[in-house]
Amino acid sequence: MDLLKKRIVDEGAILPGGIIRVDSFLNHQIDPMLMQAMAKEFASRFADAGITKVLTIEASGIAVAVLTALEFGVPLVFAKKQASKNMQGNSVCARVKSYTKGTESDVVVCSDYITPDDRVLIVDDFLAMGEAVRGLIQLVDQSNAELAGVGILIEKGFQPGGKQLREQGIRLESLAIVESTDHGVIHFRD
Amino acid sequence: MDLLKKRIVDEGAILPGGIIRVDSFLNHQIDPMLMQAMAKEFASRFADAGITKVLTIEASGIAVAVLTALEFGVPLVFAKKQASKNMQGNSVCARVKSYTKGTESDVVVCSDYITPDDRVLIVDDFLAMGEAVRGLIQLVDQSNAELAGVGILIEKGFQPGGKQLREQGIRLESLAIVESTDHGVIHFRD
Repeated sequence: MDLLKKRIVDEGAILPGGIIRVDSFLNHQIDPMLMQAMAKEFASRFADAGITKVLTIEASGIAVAVLTALEFGVPLVFAKKQASKNMQGNSVCARVKSYTKGTESDVVVCSDYITPDDRVLIVDDFLAMGEAVRGLIQLVDQSNAELAGVGILIEKGFQPGGKQLREQGIRLESLAIVESTDHGVIHFRD
Repeated sequence: MDLLKKRIVDEGAILPGGIIRVDSFLNHQIDPMLMQAMAKEFASRFADAGITKVLTIEASGIAVAVLTALEFGVPLVFAKKQASKNMQGNSVCARVKSYTKGTESDVVVCSDYITPDDRVLIVDDFLAMGEAVRGLIQLVDQSNAELAGVGILIEKGFQPGGKQLREQGIRLESLAIVESTDHGVIHFRD
């Protein structure tokens, strides 16, 4: 998606370890008009997928995910990184490692909100090692729901997450795939 | 706002300690159409306020905040609960206690994103003791920006946060103010 790629090139910064910093428009400050355009792109790409629910993980995935859910006219569910006092009843849980933050956490979804009738679109901002998406897929599986696909804003093509998901036959749509960041220059996959 | 109050009555549950559980449409599963209606309400109530930026705190405030920012056509900034590896440069920081989660955390905003030129609307889903909003106001003050107002979805009128903010002269708009939850029955302030 050219609009997103242009913003990455114009405003993104490459940090050591292949981290792409897009804090100015995507995951700290957020450009809601860009997010809406990307949500519409997901709605178009998954128009035939019979989506009944959008699933993401807190926190930075929520912005694009709620706009995507709005386009589909379906609820958004966000997996929580820790169970809070006001969560009750049955839940499904998966363990997720964050390489960026250097943490591991349990992600939890209340069983009321993802059910066997659901066709779920997972939406997240970044895909690198694929840990978060794999955790979310486990939550869909444990809920006996159907995974309709995965929509990602920025995939790091030089890390294995996207390749592994595609090899599993999962329908993965990434709006920008960064192939390399060598010498601080961003190259996209065509 | 009647639409919100109806959903609270129909779907909300009262837990011990005055916690209002609205997980089915607001802070775990999210109804994006309701969120959009509430964002439009904020846009209407603060139409004259010259908002240049919306500020919230991760995680559950992000959904309504991004839709509010979209209505105003301005960026959203969300304060992060911990600095991540890909945050760089100067930042402002405040300490926030969560009574619901029983935690204390530092919330951080990069100084690039709230500047002295900004007129900031703070948006969050809940207001009870007011700790999160007070932390966000500190971030606005430290950034030498101007606080235009605070928009809240559900205020717990039986806790002191809202009263204290109004006594400070802060323009606070809460779309539903729960006056009491005695015997598990929700009463709203008129």
